[in-house]
Amino acid sequence: MALSIQNILKQVKSGKLSVEDAILHLKTAPFEDLGYAKVDLHRKLRQGAAEVIYGSGKTPRQIAGIIKSMQYNGQKSVLITRMSEEAAAYVSESCRIEYHPECRVGMVGPMPTPNGLGTIVVATGGTSDIQVAEEAALTAEFLGNKVNRLYDVGVSGLHRLLAHLDELMQANVVITIAGMEGALASVIGGLVNCPVIAVPTSVGYGASFHGLSALLSMLNSCASGVSVVNIDNGFGAGFIASRINHVKAK
Amino acid sequence: MALSIQNILKQVKSGKLSVEDAILHLKTAPFEDLGYAKVDLHRKLRQGAAEVIYGSGKTPRQIAGIIKSMQYNGQKSVLITRMSEEAAAYVSESCRIEYHPECRVGMVGPMPTPNGLGTIVVATGGTSDIQVAEEAALTAEFLGNKVNRLYDVGVSGLHRLLAHLDELMQANVVITIAGMEGALASVIGGLVNCPVIAVPTSVGYGASFHGLSALLSMLNSCASGVSVVNIDNGFGAGFIASRINHVKAK
Amino acid sequence: MALSIQNILKQVKSGKLSVEDAILHLKTAPFEDLGYAKVDLHRKLRQGAAEVIYGSGKTPRQIAGIIKSMQYNGQKSVLITRMSEEAAAYVSESCRIEYHPECRVGMVGPMPTPNGLGTIVVATGGTSDIQVAEEAALTAEFLGNKVNRLYDVGVSGLHRLLAHLDELMQANVVITIAGMEGALASVIGGLVNCPVIAVPTSVGYGASFHGLSALLSMLNSCASGVSVVNIDNGFGAGFIASRINHVKAK
Amino acid sequence: MALSIQNILKQVKSGKLSVEDAILHLKTAPFEDLGYAKVDLHRKLRQGAAEVIYGSGKTPRQIAGIIKSMQYNGQKSVLITRMSEEAAAYVSESCRIEYHPECRVGMVGPMPTPNGLGTIVVATGGTSDIQVAEEAALTAEFLGNKVNRLYDVGVSGLHRLLAHLDELMQANVVITIAGMEGALASVIGGLVNCPVIAVPTSVGYGASFHGLSALLSMLNSCASGVSVVNIDNGFGAGFIASRINHVKAK
Amino acid sequence: MALSIQNILKQVKSGKLSVEDAILHLKTAPFEDLGYAKVDLHRKLRQGAAEVIYGSGKTPRQIAGIIKSMQYNGQKSVLITRMSEEAAAYVSESCRIEYHPECRVGMVGPMPTPNGLGTIVVATGGTSDIQVAEEAALTAEFLGNKVNRLYDVGVSGLHRLLAHLDELMQANVVITIAGMEGALASVIGGLVNCPVIAVPTSVGYGASFHGLSALLSMLNSCASGVSVVNIDNGFGAGFIASRINHVKAK
Amino acid sequence: MALSIQNILKQVKSGKLSVEDAILHLKTAPFEDLGYAKVDLHRKLRQGAAEVIYGSGKTPRQIAGIIKSMQYNGQKSVLITRMSEEAAAYVSESCRIEYHPECRVGMVGPMPTPNGLGTIVVATGGTSDIQVAEEAALTAEFLGNKVNRLYDVGVSGLHRLLAHLDELMQANVVITIAGMEGALASVIGGLVNCPVIAVPTSVGYGASFHGLSALLSMLNSCASGVSVVNIDNGFGAGFIASRINHVKAK
Amino acid sequence: MALSIQNILKQVKSGKLSVEDAILHLKTAPFEDLGYAKVDLHRKLRQGAAEVIYGSGKTPRQIAGIIKSMQYNGQKSVLITRMSEEAAAYVSESCRIEYHPECRVGMVGPMPTPNGLGTIVVATGGTSDIQVAEEAALTAEFLGNKVNRLYDVGVSGLHRLLAHLDELMQANVVITIAGMEGALASVIGGLVNCPVIAVPTSVGYGASFHGLSALLSMLNSCASGVSVVNIDNGFGAGFIASRINHVKAK
Amino acid sequence: MALSIQNILKQVKSGKLSVEDAILHLKTAPFEDLGYAKVDLHRKLRQGAAEVIYGSGKTPRQIAGIIKSMQYNGQKSVLITRMSEEAAAYVSESCRIEYHPECRVGMVGPMPTPNGLGTIVVATGGTSDIQVAEEAALTAEFLGNKVNRLYDVGVSGLHRLLAHLDELMQANVVITIAGMEGALASVIGGLVNCPVIAVPTSVGYGASFHGLSALLSMLNSCASGVSVVNIDNGFGAGFIASRINHVKAK
Repeated sequence: MALSIQNILKQVKSGKLSVEDAILHLKTAPFEDLGYAKVDLHRKLRQGAAEVIYGSGKTPRQIAGIIKSMQYNGQKSVLITRMSEEAAAYVSESCRIEYHPECRVGMVGPMPTPNGLGTIVVATGGTSDIQVAEEAALTAEFLGNKVNRLYDVGVSGLHRLLAHLDELMQANVVITIAGMEGALASVIGGLVNCPVIAVPTSVGYGASFHGLSALLSMLNSCASGVSVVNIDNGFGAGFIASRINHVKAK
Repeated sequence: MALSIQNILKQVKSGKLSVEDAILHLKTAPFEDLGYAKVDLHRKLRQGAAEVIYGSGKTPRQIAGIIKSMQYNGQKSVLITRMSEEAAAYVSESCRIEYHPECRVGMVGPMPTPNGLGTIVVATGGTSDIQVAEEAALTAEFLGNKVNRLYDVGVSGLHRLLAHLDELMQANVVITIAGMEGALASVIGGLVNCPVIAVPTSVGYGASFHGLSALLSMLNSCASGVSVVNIDNGFGAGFIASRINHVKAK
Repeated sequence: MALSIQNILKQVKSGKLSVEDAILHLKTAPFEDLGYAKVDLHRKLRQGAAEVIYGSGKTPRQIAGIIKSMQYNGQKSVLITRMSEEAAAYVSESCRIEYHPECRVGMVGPMPTPNGLGTIVVATGGTSDIQVAEEAALTAEFLGNKVNRLYDVGVSGLHRLLAHLDELMQANVVITIAGMEGALASVIGGLVNCPVIAVPTSVGYGASFHGLSALLSMLNSCASGVSVVNIDNGFGAGFIASRINHVKAK
Repeated sequence: MALSIQNILKQVKSGKLSVEDAILHLKTAPFEDLGYAKVDLHRKLRQGAAEVIYGSGKTPRQIAGIIKSMQYNGQKSVLITRMSEEAAAYVSESCRIEYHPECRVGMVGPMPTPNGLGTIVVATGGTSDIQVAEEAALTAEFLGNKVNRLYDVGVSGLHRLLAHLDELMQANVVITIAGMEGALASVIGGLVNCPVIAVPTSVGYGASFHGLSALLSMLNSCASGVSVVNIDNGFGAGFIASRINHVKAK
Repeated sequence: MALSIQNILKQVKSGKLSVEDAILHLKTAPFEDLGYAKVDLHRKLRQGAAEVIYGSGKTPRQIAGIIKSMQYNGQKSVLITRMSEEAAAYVSESCRIEYHPECRVGMVGPMPTPNGLGTIVVATGGTSDIQVAEEAALTAEFLGNKVNRLYDVGVSGLHRLLAHLDELMQANVVITIAGMEGALASVIGGLVNCPVIAVPTSVGYGASFHGLSALLSMLNSCASGVSVVNIDNGFGAGFIASRINHVKAK
Repeated sequence: MALSIQNILKQVKSGKLSVEDAILHLKTAPFEDLGYAKVDLHRKLRQGAAEVIYGSGKTPRQIAGIIKSMQYNGQKSVLITRMSEEAAAYVSESCRIEYHPECRVGMVGPMPTPNGLGTIVVATGGTSDIQVAEEAALTAEFLGNKVNRLYDVGVSGLHRLLAHLDELMQANVVITIAGMEGALASVIGGLVNCPVIAVPTSVGYGASFHGLSALLSMLNSCASGVSVVNIDNGFGAGFIASRINHVKAK
Repeated sequence: MALSIQNILKQVKSGKLSVEDAILHLKTAPFEDLGYAKVDLHRKLRQGAAEVIYGSGKTPRQIAGIIKSMQYNGQKSVLITRMSEEAAAYVSESCRIEYHPECRVGMVGPMPTPNGLGTIVVATGGTSDIQVAEEAALTAEFLGNKVNRLYDVGVSGLHRLLAHLDELMQANVVITIAGMEGALASVIGGLVNCPVIAVPTSVGYGASFHGLSALLSMLNSCASGVSVVNIDNGFGAGFIASRINHVKAK
Repeated sequence: MALSIQNILKQVKSGKLSVEDAILHLKTAPFEDLGYAKVDLHRKLRQGAAEVIYGSGKTPRQIAGIIKSMQYNGQKSVLITRMSEEAAAYVSESCRIEYHPECRVGMVGPMPTPNGLGTIVVATGGTSDIQVAEEAALTAEFLGNKVNRLYDVGVSGLHRLLAHLDELMQANVVITIAGMEGALASVIGGLVNCPVIAVPTSVGYGASFHGLSALLSMLNSCASGVSVVNIDNGFGAGFIASRINHVKAK
């Protein structure tokens, strides 16, 4: 954005841009205002990632409108998370969409070729955590990463996890996804030497308090390389893992 | 107590006891009333364990008074938990006491010879959990158990725990003591085939919320054989472990 | 597992097993990977109990698949908890299942003859706690224990509890199940001399906060022999009680 | 107050009081304004109880000033709760005060002769609850009630409580005071047929969360006649018990 | 119960009762065991109130069974709270029931003539609190009290409350029922000189946290004569108010 | 109200009003009692705003009854919040109503001409916050204010917000509405020099805990001019903003 | 800031400012960087209020340094909140400071003449709330407002509050400050027709949970004109009240 | 570890290692057992970082002992966090230590030359967050990273942050540290295209609940690239940032 100001100032100085137009430009360029949403068209440049639509709380028509606005402005691929089946059906009427009902992820446009530094491992404690895991894995793949899924490797049967030690050791980032007591994050955090992103899930009952137990557990991990995202936030974990997997020397 | 009623009724029938005396007996026998405390002198018979004094919130004089009442009524050994150094000093004026300042446990009278079924393992996640662990271990020893201490075997360095797998597998009960995320309970719970008593500790900071994180973690353990006691309740864990280690065929 | 390593090492040394095969063996032996679940086929040996399926969050097809895998690997009896009627109906198409709809427990295969040290008493505070109690009782019976059910003996009518004092005193383990204020655990804990497993239930309303009140109450029990499992975790209580009832001298 | 308005209106009508004076009277009569406090001198008439000073957060000088204002306006006896030793010493310089340091209660002026309908029982679960109990008992005595103290009758040793069943059955109100799991309220609530006031105390540690556990427990009591006051609020319990013990047919 | 023991002992002494029969009597007399419930038939004698059925969590058949057991044992009137419309319909097939759907209260048998000391006022903050208020009012009427209903007198329009000051001042007990911030309890508590029972309701949204806000508010009331029951517990408030309104000089 | 007392007193003095009538007047004047509600007809005079009906927890018939009572007493316009579609349909049978289903607001009678000091800006963090925002905006318009809506200007795309800096700087009050982390309030609070009313919304999932996260965030805002209303309380924010926008020199 | 950009752009266009200098200007103008703090020297222009120093967590030397930086840049009066006595003493060595130890407020420089639209009333529920009230009152006075203090007018003695009804009705803003149940905000909110800022205080004990009870209570106020600031945040309330009292027609 | 097993197996096969020795090796190699701590000497190889000592809850002697054990085993540099001044003084008697009292960090041995991919920015919201920030910054430097400190750039004065936009845009990782409402993480998260590690601090009061507010805020960040560590966990953030800054193509 500092650069943008510089460019605009230079054009003002050279007379290519009037003061009024410069102000207008600063205000209108980076997004399109749909009334119910201001679609951020600049983010790809600014942040290196395509716009993602958080589908929850948006009507099917709003989602379709945002996709159309993005495509019109040159965005080829769009990821939609927390997308209802109803919304997916509605969108599919106007464009081709790949929809994963179990994790409520929709994807419009072509998938990229993996271009990250290495592999992202997505590991879950149990079978019930898979829907969150798929949101993470698909997000990471959508953002250009190779993903290795290790499901149902919870700590109550440690040998299931240790059997995959090679794969864990070779990962560039590990996403650990677990509900209940969330111990998986600490155990994996103690085994690997890459960053670990922990996702607590709302899997469990009673004193799991809808994921609070796993959340606190992961925040208090005795293993040092673990950071945490919101409960059930598979998308966030996939997004951050992708950023780490695309870090460059500067 | 049902048995006691039976005995009393039999004596009433046989004329050995008047109705009034029987009622009196029912009321006064099982404890001595010191005003500030009603010392339970029957518990050893009723529950199979000597009376234990919970020292917190009691003055040194009250503690000394309760010990004296117990001794007068034939109790040879007394355990005092959460005992301040001040109270220990006061009590030591009138009787011989062995005091452990780091875990605030005092013991009066002779220690029993171990008579349990097997060994109780006391395992901690870190160095800071040791004071709770010692309360558990000393309690178990006081109640006639052989104890094996495994300290600082937390899950962030799994090999430290696995190195002691033999000892864990041979235990009759395992007490796992951990703060922070409390993952130790689940990992041990998945390895052994005996009952596991989990003690969350208040070790940690921030989102550990004084032990809440470890407590929730342990309650939600994905390993099936784990039950939980209050935060920092080393005594309770030692007491229950002893009961399990003294279970008999009936 | 330490023993297994020893066996494998011995075979490696004697040339019966190549290094590559040994590693393979370490990794693949103890479970079958169904993709969505890694079925633990080793647990019976390692932990002395058959695999139990936690049905919540698993689809009927996944549950049926896990049962089949277990049976294929020699497991005769399988317990499924938190099983929906839909899942039970689905499974019943391919194998014989005994299903208890009120506590959502399914059992496949023959029930064992009781082989524990004594009797497990399952006591509830009220009528509404019965569904959790049945999960506990059926689990204990499935694992080879004799169970005595004492339902609706809550502390607000103490004589209902005292009328069963004999049965309580003769138990080897007592499971106390109560919602609301959960006082039953403390009262029973003060009467018996065996381990007490307390199960808070989500029965109640308002400030019971879905079982939190009973949970905290049981964790803070002034009776010394009480340990606690998760809210509504009847299975866990039955499982632990069974372990205690099968403790052996070592 | 409706009555007061009526009197004032009558005097206005009869010309005994001007409109301006009437308004003035309505505003200034019932309290004296000390700047830092508005001393309520009307409450004895309006509510049937002398003014009580809540000492916490008030300086010794402020407390002394309020006492003086009360005495000047004809109040003979004053109760001060949560009074620091420093405040008691300061007040004792200007008037005679009876101070109970263990429960931080001060009393100025003569104690009344008991004039209630019957006896108030104050029962505690343990020794550590006594300081709250004394605040309740002294308050009740200060307000004209006969009090019977039953201390250390917690539910983990039920016979201690049952030994006092006569006294409980003969009470007009029972105040039950307990920390930890607060089960005493439910057990007593199930035994007696008079109103029970439950006071949770902050006695305990860990998951007692400074009295929250006992508070929730008492609010969820399965016994029907139990109502609850704030944690450690001995004064409130004594005050309400006194009101109940002075209820009159209307 | 102490008295019962005495009677039984006397009969044992005089030979009218064998020891075995005495024990049997102690155990079986006071309730009928229906398997899913132990119906307390002694409570009317012991506690002065008829048995009340808490309908939540009980099936229609269980409720009908308990009513039948009570009637068979001489109980004429039965109150059922939290009763579903379905349960009311089922019960009405076998006996005459008066059912109030808005507060889910059912009443079987004749209503008593009021025999309390005075009037119980039931006051609510708003219109939405009425269903809890009716549970309280009907309970109090069922237990023999005259009830005066003051609905929608919340503190945000103080004149609505002050208009009923006479009625408040003449009450023997006031039940204040309010959600949201629950301030009504404190304002009424400062105006009257009789016991006030406060019932927080789950009325509200957001930071009312299902009644927690009103609950904490009422527990912290700056007015001294207020005690509190569980959120939405209209029954409990009516029950306690009735006990207070029937207190007798002893 | 003080003034009213004065007027009544003057009339009493002058003989225009009897004492009994004066008391009657004090009690009956300001509201109409519908049994289930006491309609406040005085509030417009006393508080400068028309009565608003909080529709939640009221039946369609009750809402219609309150509207009729207000209209009968001269109130021309009525706002109904949290109004169900069912209630709107019912009311529309007897009078003309403008109903906004997405924010559940109904308005009866003519809208006023804006008469405030300036403009109220309503800004939201995202698209999902719009339904709360519309409740705020419509309330403010109903109470005579000009409203400027800025939707979807959340802090994760700061340029969207900065593009509207002029409008923010020219507002007299800003209402900021956001869920999730609620950071919008702090950022706007640091940019403008007028009062900011923050409305946390329940938008989000997991650790947003139904709006708790945004609520705490806004209460802890490091910007000084921010005050907060209840979660999702669009009405309250619009009402307060209107009061601020109508402040007058006194 | 938009205006500033315009000015800078105009100067760039006219050649008065180079592109590089423009960027530099945008970055360096508005604050002075002290390393440990970036002193905001632009805020008076941007937000209409002098910089205020939040003293908590800053060393005496840091506070003195920030004051010096402000004075050097032309700020005449500085307010410091949460200032320790130690910091006040240190600052007093280098400049004249007026320090209020009971509310920990320091003021450097001359006080302004009141220039607001009307009067701000600061009302407290009790004596213990005064220190928060003084922080609010002094802040408002420092920002140019006339303040009227009404202390100890809590709702348990309603007549104390009603006696000041005139003053409340004539206020332009009311700040209500209360701990415990915080009912004062609702009662005042129902009486006045100006904005009410509610400040919960941490006064109380037990279930007040350090101000949480009053906070929730105020957020759920049934009176419509109430907004809330953080617990004990007297400064924030005074600041907002001042903004409201200085609102201008635009 | 999988590799280690392979190596050990190979040596067993080749006869270089006996079975017994192999097992011994697996168990004893990777740590030294000091009784109170098991010093992990393998971690540098396994995880790529030197052992760090968490000083809290360890005595000065224990810390010194662990340092000595590490040095004896070839570890040159040791970082100690949460180190008391007392411990630093004790350690300084036996080896040279650089101690930072304001953030309680101690460092023994030489600092490494930065060898990461780029720069880590450490940004704080206020002055009071600096002690946590220094723990993060020193940790990152200790682990071989170049660090750029941006302190006191909170969102209430947005221009302070925007002035450093260049530095933020050029970072490889940003650590954002803030208390109160923690909005800084979201604002920075929306501006940069590298991973952001958010550290909530316990700075604040009242409803900040010791960092809970900032923690929830950061977990719910609407910006996608933000992950979170425990409250006040500067070390964890620095450690993770270092791992990200050392990610390598695999």
